[in-house]
Amino acid sequence: MTNSTGIEKLVTHIPGFDLIAEGGLPKGRTTLVSGTAGSAKTVLACQFLAAGLVHADEPGVFVTFEEPPEDIRRNMHSLGWALKDWEAQEKWAFVDASPDPAEELIEAGSYDFGALLARVEHAVRKVGAKRVVMDSIGAIFTKFTDRAMVRRELFRTATVLKQLEVTALLTAERTEEYGEIARFGVEEFVADNVVILRNALEGEKRRRTIEILKFRGTPHQKGEWPFTIVPGEGMVVLPLSAIELSQRSSNIR
Amino acid sequence: MTNSTGIEKLVTHIPGFDLIAEGGLPKGRTTLVSGTAGSAKTVLACQFLAAGLVHADEPGVFVTFEEPPEDIRRNMHSLGWALKDWEAQEKWAFVDASPDPAEELIEAGSYDFGALLARVEHAVRKVGAKRVVMDSIGAIFTKFTDRAMVRRELFRTATVLKQLEVTALLTAERTEEYGEIARFGVEEFVADNVVILRNALEGEKRRRTIEILKFRGTPHQKGEWPFTIVPGEGMVVLPLSAIELSQRSSNIR
Amino acid sequence: MTNSTGIEKLVTHIPGFDLIAEGGLPKGRTTLVSGTAGSAKTVLACQFLAAGLVHADEPGVFVTFEEPPEDIRRNMHSLGWALKDWEAQEKWAFVDASPDPAEELIEAGSYDFGALLARVEHAVRKVGAKRVVMDSIGAIFTKFTDRAMVRRELFRTATVLKQLEVTALLTAERTEEYGEIARFGVEEFVADNVVILRNALEGEKRRRTIEILKFRGTPHQKGEWPFTIVPGEGMVVLPLSAIELSQRSSNIR
Amino acid sequence: MTNSTGIEKLVTHIPGFDLIAEGGLPKGRTTLVSGTAGSAKTVLACQFLAAGLVHADEPGVFVTFEEPPEDIRRNMHSLGWALKDWEAQEKWAFVDASPDPAEELIEAGSYDFGALLARVEHAVRKVGAKRVVMDSIGAIFTKFTDRAMVRRELFRTATVLKQLEVTALLTAERTEEYGEIARFGVEEFVADNVVILRNALEGEKRRRTIEILKFRGTPHQKGEWPFTIVPGEGMVVLPLSAIELSQRSSNIR
Amino acid sequence: MTNSTGIEKLVTHIPGFDLIAEGGLPKGRTTLVSGTAGSAKTVLACQFLAAGLVHADEPGVFVTFEEPPEDIRRNMHSLGWALKDWEAQEKWAFVDASPDPAEELIEAGSYDFGALLARVEHAVRKVGAKRVVMDSIGAIFTKFTDRAMVRRELFRTATVLKQLEVTALLTAERTEEYGEIARFGVEEFVADNVVILRNALEGEKRRRTIEILKFRGTPHQKGEWPFTIVPGEGMVVLPLSAIELSQRSSNIR
Amino acid sequence: MTNSTGIEKLVTHIPGFDLIAEGGLPKGRTTLVSGTAGSAKTVLACQFLAAGLVHADEPGVFVTFEEPPEDIRRNMHSLGWALKDWEAQEKWAFVDASPDPAEELIEAGSYDFGALLARVEHAVRKVGAKRVVMDSIGAIFTKFTDRAMVRRELFRTATVLKQLEVTALLTAERTEEYGEIARFGVEEFVADNVVILRNALEGEKRRRTIEILKFRGTPHQKGEWPFTIVPGEGMVVLPLSAIELSQRSSNIR
Ligand SMILES: Nc1ncnc2c1ncn2[C@@H]1O[C@H](COP(=O)(O)OP(=O)(O)OP(=O)(O)O)[C@@H](O)[C@H]1O
Ligand SMILES: Nc1ncnc2c1ncn2[C@@H]1O[C@H](COP(=O)(O)OP(=O)(O)OP(=O)(O)O)[C@@H](O)[C@H]1O
Ligand SMILES: Nc1ncnc2c1ncn2[C@@H]1O[C@H](COP(=O)(O)OP(=O)(O)OP(=O)(O)O)[C@@H](O)[C@H]1O
Ligand SMILES: Nc1ncnc2c1ncn2[C@@H]1O[C@H](COP(=O)(O)OP(=O)(O)OP(=O)(O)O)[C@@H](O)[C@H]1O
Ligand SMILES: Nc1ncnc2c1ncn2[C@@H]1O[C@H](COP(=O)(O)OP(=O)(O)OP(=O)(O)O)[C@@H](O)[C@H]1O
Ligand SMILES: Nc1ncnc2c1ncn2[C@@H]1O[C@H](COP(=O)(O)OP(=O)(O)OP(=O)(O)O)[C@@H](O)[C@H]1O
Ligand SMILES: [Mg+2]
Ligand SMILES: [Mg+2]
Ligand SMILES: [Mg+2]
Ligand SMILES: [Mg+2]
Ligand SMILES: [Mg+2]
Ligand SMILES: [Mg+2]
Repeated sequence: MTNSTGIEKLVTHIPGFDLIAEGGLPKGRTTLVSGTAGSAKTVLACQFLAAGLVHADEPGVFVTFEEPPEDIRRNMHSLGWALKDWEAQEKWAFVDASPDPAEELIEAGSYDFGALLARVEHAVRKVGAKRVVMDSIGAIFTKFTDRAMVRRELFRTATVLKQLEVTALLTAERTEEYGEIARFGVEEFVADNVVILRNALEGEKRRRTIEILKFRGTPHQKGEWPFTIVPGEGMVVLPLSAIELSQRSSNIR
Repeated sequence: MTNSTGIEKLVTHIPGFDLIAEGGLPKGRTTLVSGTAGSAKTVLACQFLAAGLVHADEPGVFVTFEEPPEDIRRNMHSLGWALKDWEAQEKWAFVDASPDPAEELIEAGSYDFGALLARVEHAVRKVGAKRVVMDSIGAIFTKFTDRAMVRRELFRTATVLKQLEVTALLTAERTEEYGEIARFGVEEFVADNVVILRNALEGEKRRRTIEILKFRGTPHQKGEWPFTIVPGEGMVVLPLSAIELSQRSSNIR
Repeated sequence: MTNSTGIEKLVTHIPGFDLIAEGGLPKGRTTLVSGTAGSAKTVLACQFLAAGLVHADEPGVFVTFEEPPEDIRRNMHSLGWALKDWEAQEKWAFVDASPDPAEELIEAGSYDFGALLARVEHAVRKVGAKRVVMDSIGAIFTKFTDRAMVRRELFRTATVLKQLEVTALLTAERTEEYGEIARFGVEEFVADNVVILRNALEGEKRRRTIEILKFRGTPHQKGEWPFTIVPGEGMVVLPLSAIELSQRSSNIR
Repeated sequence: MTNSTGIEKLVTHIPGFDLIAEGGLPKGRTTLVSGTAGSAKTVLACQFLAAGLVHADEPGVFVTFEEPPEDIRRNMHSLGWALKDWEAQEKWAFVDASPDPAEELIEAGSYDFGALLARVEHAVRKVGAKRVVMDSIGAIFTKFTDRAMVRRELFRTATVLKQLEVTALLTAERTEEYGEIARFGVEEFVADNVVILRNALEGEKRRRTIEILKFRGTPHQKGEWPFTIVPGEGMVVLPLSAIELSQRSSNIR
Repeated sequence: MTNSTGIEKLVTHIPGFDLIAEGGLPKGRTTLVSGTAGSAKTVLACQFLAAGLVHADEPGVFVTFEEPPEDIRRNMHSLGWALKDWEAQEKWAFVDASPDPAEELIEAGSYDFGALLARVEHAVRKVGAKRVVMDSIGAIFTKFTDRAMVRRELFRTATVLKQLEVTALLTAERTEEYGEIARFGVEEFVADNVVILRNALEGEKRRRTIEILKFRGTPHQKGEWPFTIVPGEGMVVLPLSAIELSQRSSNIR
Repeated sequence: MTNSTGIEKLVTHIPGFDLIAEGGLPKGRTTLVSGTAGSAKTVLACQFLAAGLVHADEPGVFVTFEEPPEDIRRNMHSLGWALKDWEAQEKWAFVDASPDPAEELIEAGSYDFGALLARVEHAVRKVGAKRVVMDSIGAIFTKFTDRAMVRRELFRTATVLKQLEVTALLTAERTEEYGEIARFGVEEFVADNVVILRNALEGEKRRRTIEILKFRGTPHQKGEWPFTIVPGEGMVVLPLSAIELSQRSSNIR
């Protein structure tokens, strides 16, 4: 019986991120990205796919649970990513799982994950995706009250994505910058990898940081790293300590 | 397939606000404005419509969920806005969704959002509104216990307003200046844009600040900015840091 | 259509209060006064009526939900107000809504607000009241678990008082000096005006302050102001900062 | 109609207490005494009755809800009070409302207050009591989940005691020295008078203080005052500030 | 009628404890010992019995609710107490109330305290016990949700132990070093005497302290006192302040 | 009757751990290892088994409740442990209790512990295991709401493992570095031994520490000790204080 190999890294090509990730995201596995409202989860998710296309010709699938695809296209426009072109080339596929506002029915709390994962699989095969993002699990889990069910469905989702041999990002919501990692207190244990985006208010100013909390089976830099969002570029992680950053530039608010 | 365009800004003409918003509010989208009691949500909401009429001839609709229109007219009188005139010119329409005190029935928790949105649409078309405010969603959501339903109805409301091609402000209630953004922990994720009004008590004095927490798809200044309410003018945002402000004027309490 | 007028102020004649209120209480409207046990809510309520009689010949109605009228008369005696005289002159009317201790029945949570408001209206007309106080809503709302019902009944009460064209004070209970404004987290949003009485423990000493948190439609001084209760006079608000106060008198505990 | 008189004070003869109470306890009314476990509630309650007998020949009734009378007699022995003698002289009566340990039944939450108050009335008349204590309401209210019922029964108890024209002390339990005043958040509002006993842990040492939080209708000293329990004497309140106390004696732990 | 005597103390012979207890534990009564996991409750309980045998020939009964007797014998071996010998001499009796792991049934929350107390009585009479410990009530109360029932059963237990004329220690669980005294917020009020064992984490080090919070009817030293566990001896209380302790020995971690 | 012997220690051969454990883990007993997500619970669990094989020829069983065995093999590859080889030699056995993602059924909260323990026993006998780990109990207890059931099943598991005469590690989840030890507030009391892994965020950096909170019946070093994870080696505990550590190396983040 041959021994298992270790965990490979997938180069993300997100500026600065591969440095703190010591290579990139764990390949073929799922990473949970948790953050408060406006902490740049959707930007990071899009950039993961965009960078994959621009730098590595790795097609991607974007599964959206609340924001309609047209809104996402418009939002990412000023960061320089022309999603429509990639969709036309069948290198980028949206799976639109956003709610139908006309639907009056409120589901009693059971979301058909099976059907969703089937759609994801179809899209992955269609574009030959190597990267998949799902934004944001908070939108569907809001209906859930049973944390065991949340744990179960997240586990199932991660397993299916593993079988599809894609490297995936799942975004999750949280409400305190230094409190619970996600809503149910279980998401961070199920996920193989956890990244936290923070947007902490300190003395009337906001400070954006990214932290790799956990990468199972492979090393990474620890602690918080500052980042900014640059128009035309997207997220840029600065592999500097906070002290060095404030010396460099005091006009970045 | 042509690519999507980016997010345009609508100039609000609220003094100082367009500066920190780097242009204005995201056009054609909804912004959530959350604040504690007395933090100036209703003043901001009225001023958004008033400034639109005074400076840009953009008609508006004011949907009120608790304060009767006559109370709002009287409240805004000393800020220099003669609402009755604009109503006569059919440039300002109230949608009065305030409770009927004579009604003894307490609804079991289901609010007819469909009917409400139909009334809003009617008023928008009637005055040709470009701006809409809804004040405050806390008043109707108080009945709700199911946060998934809150999320759903907010999503639906934002979608309908998007279809009406108006730029909208929805006010929401919160109880801690530096705690949860709104009541249910979901409102800030559903909304495309989030603004927070604070009225923090520090050493026996109150300090009013406005913060743009999140603008999807477009840049903005971050962190808290001081503002005051000037009789005859309304809200004036001061694009200064707190330190500069305390040097300038120590008698503004 | 003539425009609405602004919000007038009613001079309370409570020493120091009209100064921080920049004129007095908003006339014809309801003000919520919230405070912990012993923070002087009932003293303020009585003084509002007493001052109205002594200085402005404005009759008043005192609605009591728990303290029997005879107890209130005795309590206010040492502050110099002879309530019985005013009652004899039909310038002061009590509406005794205190519980009947002989009654074994515990209501299931539905208080007949309609009947109460009818009694209040009757008393207002009888003495030609211009001022009304209701002390304290915490006593009846203790039965309530549904915050939507609390919001609804408060709204209804404020509307009826508005129709009676009286200026009203409603006292409410809270349990933390710097925490929630009232018990249910909704009272401060329903009320047009909010005043907070504090009795904070600092280094073994108590410090009484009054704060006008919110006056819809009219300006006021912000933040906390010290006050004391002077035998023979009642509440005296000191329009000084805390620093000035501690310099003036270190024996007032 | 003659005017009501003010609130008289009953001299307690508890060393130091009458000074901070500016005369004594409000006469003919009920005072709530709340404190954590071991904060000296029962000592204060006994001393109130004992001092009444020793210094003023005012008989008293001790209602006990948990500690059997024999335990209380033994506990108070080393403080110099020979309760059995006074019981023999019919100047001290116990109302033993402690649970019968042999009883297997657990009441579903309804305590027969009517029967209890009848027993109290009987004992008061029997010894001609001027002072009554009830220790501790926490023991019977532990069964209660409905805070409205707690409020109701406390109100009823205070009303009955008022009719009996006794000055009463009711002890209540709390679990945080600087948190909620009592268990249900309503007791301190129902009571006419509130005293708090603290036993705060600071830097490994305990500091006993007594505070008169509220006396309706009559003045009192505010804030915390240190006290100690002296064998052979009982509670001695020191009308000094904490700073003065630590200078005086650093060996009192 | 002869007067009641005061509260006697039982010398424990636990080094340092009798000093801070000013004589020993209140004789013939129950003391609650509460502490977090690993705070030395079981060590203290065993030592109370062992010291009674070694120094005073006072037999004892150890009631265990979770740890099997064989585990306890092995645990106490390195502290120098040969329990088996004493059991053979019928001076030490175990009442094994630990769960039977083979039993699949989960009791619905009603524990047969009557049966347990009968077994305890039997064991007490068999060895002529003067000392009894019950370790730990948290193990059986975990099933309880109704704090009134907890209070009732604790009261009953203490009453029965009083009738058996033994001096008893009951251990209880807590989860915060400086928070609630025990789990239900009622245990510390029912018990006649309360001792708290702490194991606080401060700057990466643990600090063990013992505090006598309350001894009804008899004096004691107040506040926290350091102690250590010495192999071959057991618990040793150091009647020193924390400052003196850190000067004496900085290698005791 | 011979006396019981004391508690022996099993040398773990984890660098630095046996030093702070003063010999090793209590032999033949269960140790609870609790930590937040990514605090190195699984690494410690694997290393316990791996070190047993490398240094002492003690076979082991790894029971996994969520991570599939293949994932664990890959994760541990870069730490130098070739699990497949040991499995082939029948010195390492996995008990795969991870969920079957194809299973749609969500169990109503009753996990068949009996069946699980039977599988564990079978695996232990098969490889002649001296060491057993179960990772992580949080995964199965997520379904549980009744803390009494959690306590019961943990007790049963520990008893069975004791009968199998293995030294066991059970990993548990927690969400605050300095809050509750595990999820239910009972796990730390049931377990004979408790170890806490921390990964605290301080000034943007993470600090890994291990603490032995409790070892029943045997001594150990107290407080937090720093450790790192070294590729090719695994966990290395540094028996230094935090101050010494920061002096030694400021580039270990
Ligand atoms: N195109 C852009 N140009 C500049 N800044 C942008 C752009 N898009 C987003 N931002 C910045 O990033 C912020 C948040 O972006 P994003 O939508 O990724 O947040 P999010 O974490 O997904 O929030 P939510 O959970 O509410 O969906 C915006 O508030 C803005 O400050
Ligand atoms: N006409 C005015 N002139 C001066 N100040 C005003 C005026 N109107 C309002 N203010 C100030 O603004 C405050 C709050 O105004 P506003 O009614 O907008 O608050 P809000 O956030 O809507 O409160 P709520 O949630 O309780 O409705 C007032 O308390 C007052 O301090
Ligand atoms: N006649 C008086 N003379 C002096 N001080 C008084 C007098 N009446 C009240 N006070 C002071 O005011 C305090 C509280 O008065 P008041 O009864 O108004 O409080 P409250 O806020 O209504 O309390 P509660 O909510 O418990 O009813 C008293 O505790 C006392 O310190
Ligand atoms: N006879 C005494 N001599 C000296 N000190 C005593 C005496 N009686 C009590 N004390 C001290 O007073 C403390 C508490 O007394 P007391 O029984 O009044 O407390 P309590 O507030 O009633 O507590 P609980 O709520 O638990 O009944 C004792 O712990 C002890 O420190
Ligand atoms: N024989 C011993 N020799 C040295 N130290 C010991 C010995 N027994 C116990 N200890 C120390 O005392 C600690 C706790 O002992 P003990 O079992 O009394 O705690 P406990 O409070 O009963 O915990 P739990 O509530 O989890 O049962 C151990 O973690 C260890 O540090
Ligand atoms: N092979 C490795 N090489 C280097 N570092 C590693 C390796 N494996 C793990 N780590 C480090 O250890 C961390 C956590 O490992 P581990 O999987 O044991 O955590 P855990 O406590 O089991 O987390 P969870 O509760 O989420 O399962 C990783 O985030 C990484 O920082
Ligand atoms: Mg997003
Ligand atoms: Mg408003
Ligand atoms: Mg009052
Ligand atoms: Mg007592
Ligand atoms: Mg123990
Ligand atoms: Mg793990």
